[in-house]
Amino acid sequence: MDIRSVTHVKNVYPSAGGAAVTIIDQTLLPNEVKYIELASAEALYEAIKLLRVRGAPAIGICAGFGMAALARGIDADGEDFVREFERLADYLNSSRPTAVNLSWALKRMCSVARAVSALPRAERIAALDREAQAIQDEDIDMCRRISEYGLSLLHDGAGVLTHCNAGPLATSRYGTALGPLFLGRERGMNFHVFSDETRPLLQGARLTSYELHAAGIDITLICDNMASIVMKNGWIDACLVGCDRIAANGDAANKIGTSGVAILAKHYGIPFYVLGPTSTIDMDCPSGDDIEIELRDPEEIAEKFYSKRMAPEGVKCYNPAFDVTDHSLITGIVTEHGILRPPFDVSLRGLFNQKR
Amino acid sequence: MDIRSVTHVKNVYPSAGGAAVTIIDQTLLPNEVKYIELASAEALYEAIKLLRVRGAPAIGICAGFGMAALARGIDADGEDFVREFERLADYLNSSRPTAVNLSWALKRMCSVARAVSALPRAERIAALDREAQAIQDEDIDMCRRISEYGLSLLHDGAGVLTHCNAGPLATSRYGTALGPLFLGRERGMNFHVFSDETRPLLQGARLTSYELHAAGIDITLICDNMASIVMKNGWIDACLVGCDRIAANGDAANKIGTSGVAILAKHYGIPFYVLGPTSTIDMDCPSGDDIEIELRDPEEIAEKFYSKRMAPEGVKCYNPAFDVTDHSLITGIVTEHGILRPPFDVSLRGLFNQKR
Repeated sequence: MDIRSVTHVKNVYPSAGGAAVTIIDQTLLPNEVKYIELASAEALYEAIKLLRVRGAPAIGICAGFGMAALARGIDADGEDFVREFERLADYLNSSRPTAVNLSWALKRMCSVARAVSALPRAERIAALDREAQAIQDEDIDMCRRISEYGLSLLHDGAGVLTHCNAGPLATSRYGTALGPLFLGRERGMNFHVFSDETRPLLQGARLTSYELHAAGIDITLICDNMASIVMKNGWIDACLVGCDRIAANGDAANKIGTSGVAILAKHYGIPFYVLGPTSTIDMDCPSGDDIEIELRDPEEIAEKFYSKRMAPEGVKCYNPAFDVTDHSLITGIVTEHGILRPPFDVSLRGLFNQKR
Repeated sequence: MDIRSVTHVKNVYPSAGGAAVTIIDQTLLPNEVKYIELASAEALYEAIKLLRVRGAPAIGICAGFGMAALARGIDADGEDFVREFERLADYLNSSRPTAVNLSWALKRMCSVARAVSALPRAERIAALDREAQAIQDEDIDMCRRISEYGLSLLHDGAGVLTHCNAGPLATSRYGTALGPLFLGRERGMNFHVFSDETRPLLQGARLTSYELHAAGIDITLICDNMASIVMKNGWIDACLVGCDRIAANGDAANKIGTSGVAILAKHYGIPFYVLGPTSTIDMDCPSGDDIEIELRDPEEIAEKFYSKRMAPEGVKCYNPAFDVTDHSLITGIVTEHGILRPPFDVSLRGLFNQKR
């Protein structure tokens, strides 16, 4: 396996001279590393819908390159070109309506399509290629900056615990929570990483341990309920996790189980860091109580991934996809603009006042 | 399914007029409730070794009835009878050398066999049948007393979180940690129970949710990493867990993940109770640091139970079977002799001085 394939912008990239998008089919990981080429709107739609490409930034990047590829097949100019382009974008957008980065990337591509619709065909295509590449480049830049800030929190030989997956497969290069580990590894640093398997969908087992192992980083997979014993054993110097939404007071929603890791870390006196781009900070959301938690199919717990049913028919399952980590449990929030420290209501407001 | 089969002493019992032992094959749960009859030493050995019968007390009971059954097939008297009886006991004892209750029950049966070896055959068999029944009756009595004490800690309608399985399947009637729930249900009380699935071997999903569901108790299965959110939601009034060994200072070893549940409970201000017979209290063990933690096959995390491999080949897995819950996190220890409260070094010493 090519290590660069997982650490170096190679999970989503243009192929066939820009007329297609190549992705790693993430549904086959870790059992098979298979690259597939998406050359039609239907293939792109299916890949996003079935999670062959997952991770909000990665989906956005795939949609960007995808629209640039599809533009090549539109046999029209001017308004007709724009109309057909937008129709295809709407179609892709319906594949996963809740993924914010998907609609955001498609809007960017449509905006460029309209702006260049009067230009000759070759220039139109070139402009769309540039925009798609910009979406990816900006993500790489954001990830790299978060990785640099995060790395400043770790020493060579550090023990790190992580939960779920916020690595290059979910973004572009580096990732967010896992970014400092890949960046440090590139610089010859060594870490001892413990990855929670992250039930029910096992992103930690299937993706995080895959990415880190492929990059030659010392990784040990544990079940979620083993986080306490590895902390007690003195093996963990810091916890690094991603985030889906951060409220104005610093409460952070992330994959289910994250709040439990934070409580354990506080109990054992271990710093707990949340890493993510400022786009996940929602200043209109006063606290974690205002974040709605997605409830997923109970069958994910009772049956999915198993060869045999693991709970009796008829047993209720509670299957929240996320939980909220109270700001009092968070040591620092690492963004592309630096590391925020408590009190987070003040430091978050300061960051946004500065950006404005 | 017959509810009594799981709540009323029917997972291990003598059959064929005492010439065999009938058990529920626990390896098939929850997908199939199959009773199998064990009529030979080889069948008993295989059932214990392959965990068709599991839970230390249940194994002991099975061995007791099993030896009484095998005695019927020994065509000898006096010393020859004892020699053959002990040979068969040694053979069964080698099926799972670490299960204390197995060798303890076999020793009891051998002791009776020696004492009655000079009696007529029918009286010998009757004495062995009585001893086997006594082993089960004593376990039922112990479980019932623990259940009564535990029930005194719960109110009607209480929300209860449990981890792993310490119910009737693992013992005889009632169980330990789950005993108060079955006893309360018999008396018309209702509880809202949340069962951690308990990775990697999923005893919570496969056995606890099966037992409680079959008894008509409101049970919701969650992944281990969801314990934090259900506590935060205000759904849990008490945590009830079993124990494998309790040190003289109250530190309690139990299924991996128990210490994490205790830390979460403390964080959210929820009482955390450990339930078990005094036989699990080891006054020669000063603290949890002196309890050796069994490390199990890493493949249980990476591959077992799944239809496809869930972690890449070559990824390290850390797979401790137990962890130690610090005494400072325990609200009470519920034994058949009453409920012990902190400071546990004092209350445990008091209990043992009283017993002596």
